[in-house]
Amino acid sequence: MTNPTESSRRARMTLTSSGYYVSQEAQIHSDNAVATPKASPPDILRCAYIELVVTDLAASRVFYVDVLGLYVTAEDDEAIYLRSTEEFIHHNLVLRKGPVAAAAAFSYRVRAAEDLDRAVEFYTELGCDVRRNPDGFVKGIGDSVRVVDPLGFPYEFFFETTHVERLSWRYDLHTPGELVRLDHFNQVTPDVPRAVRHYQDLGFRVTEDIQDEAGTVYAAWMRRKPTVHDTAATGGDGPRLHHVAFATHEKHNILAICDKLGALRRSDAIERGPGRHGVSNAFYLYLRDPDGHRVEIYTQDYYTGDPDNPVITWDVHDNQRRDWWGNPVVPSWYTDASLVLDLDGNPQPVIARTDSSEMAVTIGADGFSYTRPEEGEESMPEWKQGEYKLGHQL
Amino acid sequence: MTNPTESSRRARMTLTSSGYYVSQEAQIHSDNAVATPKASPPDILRCAYIELVVTDLAASRVFYVDVLGLYVTAEDDEAIYLRSTEEFIHHNLVLRKGPVAAAAAFSYRVRAAEDLDRAVEFYTELGCDVRRNPDGFVKGIGDSVRVVDPLGFPYEFFFETTHVERLSWRYDLHTPGELVRLDHFNQVTPDVPRAVRHYQDLGFRVTEDIQDEAGTVYAAWMRRKPTVHDTAATGGDGPRLHHVAFATHEKHNILAICDKLGALRRSDAIERGPGRHGVSNAFYLYLRDPDGHRVEIYTQDYYTGDPDNPVITWDVHDNQRRDWWGNPVVPSWYTDASLVLDLDGNPQPVIARTDSSEMAVTIGADGFSYTRPEEGEESMPEWKQGEYKLGHQL
Amino acid sequence: MTNPTESSRRARMTLTSSGYYVSQEAQIHSDNAVATPKASPPDILRCAYIELVVTDLAASRVFYVDVLGLYVTAEDDEAIYLRSTEEFIHHNLVLRKGPVAAAAAFSYRVRAAEDLDRAVEFYTELGCDVRRNPDGFVKGIGDSVRVVDPLGFPYEFFFETTHVERLSWRYDLHTPGELVRLDHFNQVTPDVPRAVRHYQDLGFRVTEDIQDEAGTVYAAWMRRKPTVHDTAATGGDGPRLHHVAFATHEKHNILAICDKLGALRRSDAIERGPGRHGVSNAFYLYLRDPDGHRVEIYTQDYYTGDPDNPVITWDVHDNQRRDWWGNPVVPSWYTDASLVLDLDGNPQPVIARTDSSEMAVTIGADGFSYTRPEEGEESMPEWKQGEYKLGHQL
Amino acid sequence: MTNPTESSRRARMTLTSSGYYVSQEAQIHSDNAVATPKASPPDILRCAYIELVVTDLAASRVFYVDVLGLYVTAEDDEAIYLRSTEEFIHHNLVLRKGPVAAAAAFSYRVRAAEDLDRAVEFYTELGCDVRRNPDGFVKGIGDSVRVVDPLGFPYEFFFETTHVERLSWRYDLHTPGELVRLDHFNQVTPDVPRAVRHYQDLGFRVTEDIQDEAGTVYAAWMRRKPTVHDTAATGGDGPRLHHVAFATHEKHNILAICDKLGALRRSDAIERGPGRHGVSNAFYLYLRDPDGHRVEIYTQDYYTGDPDNPVITWDVHDNQRRDWWGNPVVPSWYTDASLVLDLDGNPQPVIARTDSSEMAVTIGADGFSYTRPEEGEESMPEWKQGEYKLGHQL
Repeated sequence: MTNPTESSRRARMTLTSSGYYVSQEAQIHSDNAVATPKASPPDILRCAYIELVVTDLAASRVFYVDVLGLYVTAEDDEAIYLRSTEEFIHHNLVLRKGPVAAAAAFSYRVRAAEDLDRAVEFYTELGCDVRRNPDGFVKGIGDSVRVVDPLGFPYEFFFETTHVERLSWRYDLHTPGELVRLDHFNQVTPDVPRAVRHYQDLGFRVTEDIQDEAGTVYAAWMRRKPTVHDTAATGGDGPRLHHVAFATHEKHNILAICDKLGALRRSDAIERGPGRHGVSNAFYLYLRDPDGHRVEIYTQDYYTGDPDNPVITWDVHDNQRRDWWGNPVVPSWYTDASLVLDLDGNPQPVIARTDSSEMAVTIGADGFSYTRPEEGEESMPEWKQGEYKLGHQL
Repeated sequence: MTNPTESSRRARMTLTSSGYYVSQEAQIHSDNAVATPKASPPDILRCAYIELVVTDLAASRVFYVDVLGLYVTAEDDEAIYLRSTEEFIHHNLVLRKGPVAAAAAFSYRVRAAEDLDRAVEFYTELGCDVRRNPDGFVKGIGDSVRVVDPLGFPYEFFFETTHVERLSWRYDLHTPGELVRLDHFNQVTPDVPRAVRHYQDLGFRVTEDIQDEAGTVYAAWMRRKPTVHDTAATGGDGPRLHHVAFATHEKHNILAICDKLGALRRSDAIERGPGRHGVSNAFYLYLRDPDGHRVEIYTQDYYTGDPDNPVITWDVHDNQRRDWWGNPVVPSWYTDASLVLDLDGNPQPVIARTDSSEMAVTIGADGFSYTRPEEGEESMPEWKQGEYKLGHQL
Repeated sequence: MTNPTESSRRARMTLTSSGYYVSQEAQIHSDNAVATPKASPPDILRCAYIELVVTDLAASRVFYVDVLGLYVTAEDDEAIYLRSTEEFIHHNLVLRKGPVAAAAAFSYRVRAAEDLDRAVEFYTELGCDVRRNPDGFVKGIGDSVRVVDPLGFPYEFFFETTHVERLSWRYDLHTPGELVRLDHFNQVTPDVPRAVRHYQDLGFRVTEDIQDEAGTVYAAWMRRKPTVHDTAATGGDGPRLHHVAFATHEKHNILAICDKLGALRRSDAIERGPGRHGVSNAFYLYLRDPDGHRVEIYTQDYYTGDPDNPVITWDVHDNQRRDWWGNPVVPSWYTDASLVLDLDGNPQPVIARTDSSEMAVTIGADGFSYTRPEEGEESMPEWKQGEYKLGHQL
Repeated sequence: MTNPTESSRRARMTLTSSGYYVSQEAQIHSDNAVATPKASPPDILRCAYIELVVTDLAASRVFYVDVLGLYVTAEDDEAIYLRSTEEFIHHNLVLRKGPVAAAAAFSYRVRAAEDLDRAVEFYTELGCDVRRNPDGFVKGIGDSVRVVDPLGFPYEFFFETTHVERLSWRYDLHTPGELVRLDHFNQVTPDVPRAVRHYQDLGFRVTEDIQDEAGTVYAAWMRRKPTVHDTAATGGDGPRLHHVAFATHEKHNILAICDKLGALRRSDAIERGPGRHGVSNAFYLYLRDPDGHRVEIYTQDYYTGDPDNPVITWDVHDNQRRDWWGNPVVPSWYTDASLVLDLDGNPQPVIARTDSSEMAVTIGADGFSYTRPEEGEESMPEWKQGEYKLGHQL
């Protein structure tokens, strides 16, 4: 997949004093691009909510409400509508009871009602399955468009929504691990350059990516609102949901979630972290919900709203790219993800990635990572090699 | 100034469980409006930097660099160019040596070079003093437009700038009180509704305000980037600069600045706080630099980027509006502010506010404040009344 | 009260780079000392609990349990027994219903059962009212001795107690403002040197004090456990209880209590702070409970357990001594305090202080404070003078 | 080594709601005890400093001074004397240049000069190598006794020391990862019950331990000052130094050290963590210095000063005992440790542990761990098994 003519990409980047590269434009090009529609894309404000199908609604309620402290806007026997502290739209998360755990909709808010017409036109031109429901597909949301996008993901767009009270000042309700907003989605897809090109057509801008020297792209982060991302494309077998992320105000809030899970003897819900990301510079934690859906807790990335915001490229062999402290990524984090549904509720088939796998090139027999590029693999101490050596047996 | 027909404004607001009101549109109307230009305004991204004239450059350098830890991008005998951790444009603050302490420019970054033409057209139509310098008025900034706006403030617009390295990952350089970005300006102006109307014409949206029941507006917060504000209009004798604000990541960073000032026996630089704002919900601290310029340190307000983001109105008599903990506002915070300059560098004349003063209506003989509206002044305990009673002698 | 022969005390101290003085022994001498008993004092471990008489048990329960999050070990119609997170003895606070708000017992835990005999002997020799109850005076506490000490305070000593589960690992129960332990008491007494000498006889060591140049002592801090204090003597009309203090783990926990009080529209419970103490270097907040009893929330003082731990003396005119950030002390903090009871439950008469008052010498017409000693009063900016100037009218 | 008659130990413990057990006395008995001297032990106040032999003094200085921010009290070509913020004795760490990296002295401060006589008598009776130097063995320390204790560790006792300024108020010098005090040592020794019994004779009290159901003791924590420990005995090949620990005030200080190491491209210094301990309830991080000496950064354990402080026993198979979040312990943490020297500077021979190894019984083919005891190994999710499965190949 790496285009030989692209192997000079790194020459067009500037190495920073922190070890990553910057460029003015994303150095990602697809030779297998989805067509760019003539129609203008809808003007997306931000990722707004995700709809997850869960197999045990009561168990999920315990996890998201009792443990994580999300606020219940509405609920019935079939679904629970949850929001974070700061949210004034109806919800950021819908848990819907179903037979197979999956993501049913990645939902974005658009700037105005007219953007729904644009969404219909945009995806119709692409030949996608497009459905519009003036009453909304879920409670609390009005006129909406749902599509299966060219990459196989169920995307939703809406503007109309019921307003609810922002609970930022209701400190009497807050918990030590308070989740203040939905921050982003993360999607697993086999061909990252193809995904990036398509989402650029939809109006997203790349903020960061992970590449090797030959130009293979392992992951890319893309934003509408001026944070590091509203969604990311992670290279792997897909389409699948890698995770949904909620933000806290401070780092101790994330640690408090870990402490609480320990107290509840649910520390097995902690998959990876807490740690500091290289990519995004955010402090993070990855949890797994009762169905295995991955939830990230995230705080303190940076402002990206200027059009010339520098695009950051991390070397895939830099072992601080995914954890700034060099702590290893557990294999499940690379391999596990949630199915996504089509608009009839059937799981989308999963297509294998054919480009190199980030896990394979960084750990195990054929891979390598470094802390200091000039020292290469030698800069990986014994205690960081657990997962890396483990790669030999995977 | 209060329009009798406006006294029913509060009836169009919804009282929340936190004690403030929300409306869908700002309930602020000027009967003394600046004309709305036919020309489109420039597309402003965000507040970008402020240029302050200081009388002792070395003393200011100690304050902003040695104490507050801002990074020096460039400096010479006449000026110092400083930036915060996360910034990738040349600077967020210019300290320029001069005979009279004042603010010389409130500078905003626009989306594209073409917006400078729009700025020229917009302000020319308003009859303002408009000057354009293709080489920029200060180092590190290219083609720029400076104007004296209809409210008397020196405003600047630019897109071109030298990029510098973002220092977010350079934790080896960070201090306990690390300032990560420029957050906002705050302008003192006699007629707040007039200012709001004009800045709405320039493309700003109101996020919060302070009003009394009769509809007098004491202050309003306005944003371009999706935070609570890029600038605010504070009612008082003006045009003057109330303060410029930098953001930290966490609250302990702000406390660390106080601790350091104590260690340096410079605690007299602390004018007000630290505390929690009612307005904005942010954690704050107000400092005074060696010339008396006020600098706020600020963290953790909320996302405001949706077009239907609810506008919040605080009752001027609610003693939690400016400090959520009910701690009194020191009189100097209401009365002191920095002069602003015209484009020739002369101080703008200061025009007295004729509307009611927030200080007068909340403290002293003629004013009152409450913690719980239903209990009125009786809900103000002895220990909160220091500044309030002090009002009698002001 | 200042002994002319003592005016050279400061010459025996060493000025530090932080502005306070250190000496190897406390430079406090009483010319009106309580006799030193021949009997050995009991071996006190630490301040253990306080018994407060409250006039509305339900209102107090809301304050200490619902707002502050203390854990209920036991309760009935007459009393509530509360503990902090880390405690394994029955309680740290007893709220007992009564007609007059007061402190009924300052209770210390001793090392062994035999120390109760020592307590009886020690106070009997001093001619105090001494009562012993082998079943304890309150629930959860066994064999106990209560006395009215020579300074008029109701002191209790005990070793036997019911053990309860330490809740440090029960993060599922913790609140954002979690109180982890009882830290200290603070007693108002007219003659501080007399109090210090007596409590030294009881085995306490002075860690810090506030003096003027002439040697007048305004307050002193004394410890058994190796923190800055188990109790302090604050100069004023007494005997009265100035406050009881609970510790949190981090500073943000204290801020969270303020935020919650704001959300509950109970910010009037905040009397002073939050801030950083000069004395003790701890981060602090003072609250007033529904009866006006003062509660401090406190975190991060320092280890004092070595016998040659330097004694710190602060100049009474140093405006960073009580708040390192130079924020003024509200007058109520100096003047208000709770009555204490004798062993029959009657309020002790309050005796006026005749030595100089800290409030009088630091604020108002006859007082002065400085930030930088070499600049004197000139180093107090306008915005710090609110309370100070206010002194003129008190 | 497990005594069959001891297998009923757990029956004498009480299971808490947090999953560990408590007893009134440590349930640890040695059938291979060091004799208890008739002489009284010295009255130890606290662990005071460690002397480390380092092979590259300049490299160590960078690590401890430039990276970790310890303060240099004194230095010359052979040694550097360092202290933490709060310390008023000469140093907490001596780095001495030498050919073999090792720990040369575990030094404790005693209550009084007379305790040195007691130390001489105590260890002489035990037949140890005992040396006394009235001028101290290192700079800044006076009359001292050094011994090789019966377990093979070089222990030092002293009272006299040069006082230096406590830097707690010098916030102008503090870093984001400020180390405020020396907290504890940790010693590797083959026979933990034997070590515990001996240190109990020396006056230490057990606060926590790790055992299996049969009564094998894997580690024990012991204190003089009222924290969880001044030293700990970790079962393994010894005598060796497992680590020395410094405390910070807050958790974010520890995270800041990680962030800084990442920025310096020294993340390979991070061996384990950050995380929350089960044992001690403290927040922790383990680093390796340039010689491989392990340094823990630690914060927020609990008060243990009462004589009836409950002793906590953790089940060795509880995977939250060493990390409350269930994150795996890297094998190097179990296997690596520093040599210790005898009084002539020669490395002590290392004796193999014959009791079960904690690593072996918890990970790999013969071991198991659980999150929830009732579910056994089934409660260990895939993502927690990396290190555990890895055990198969060790």
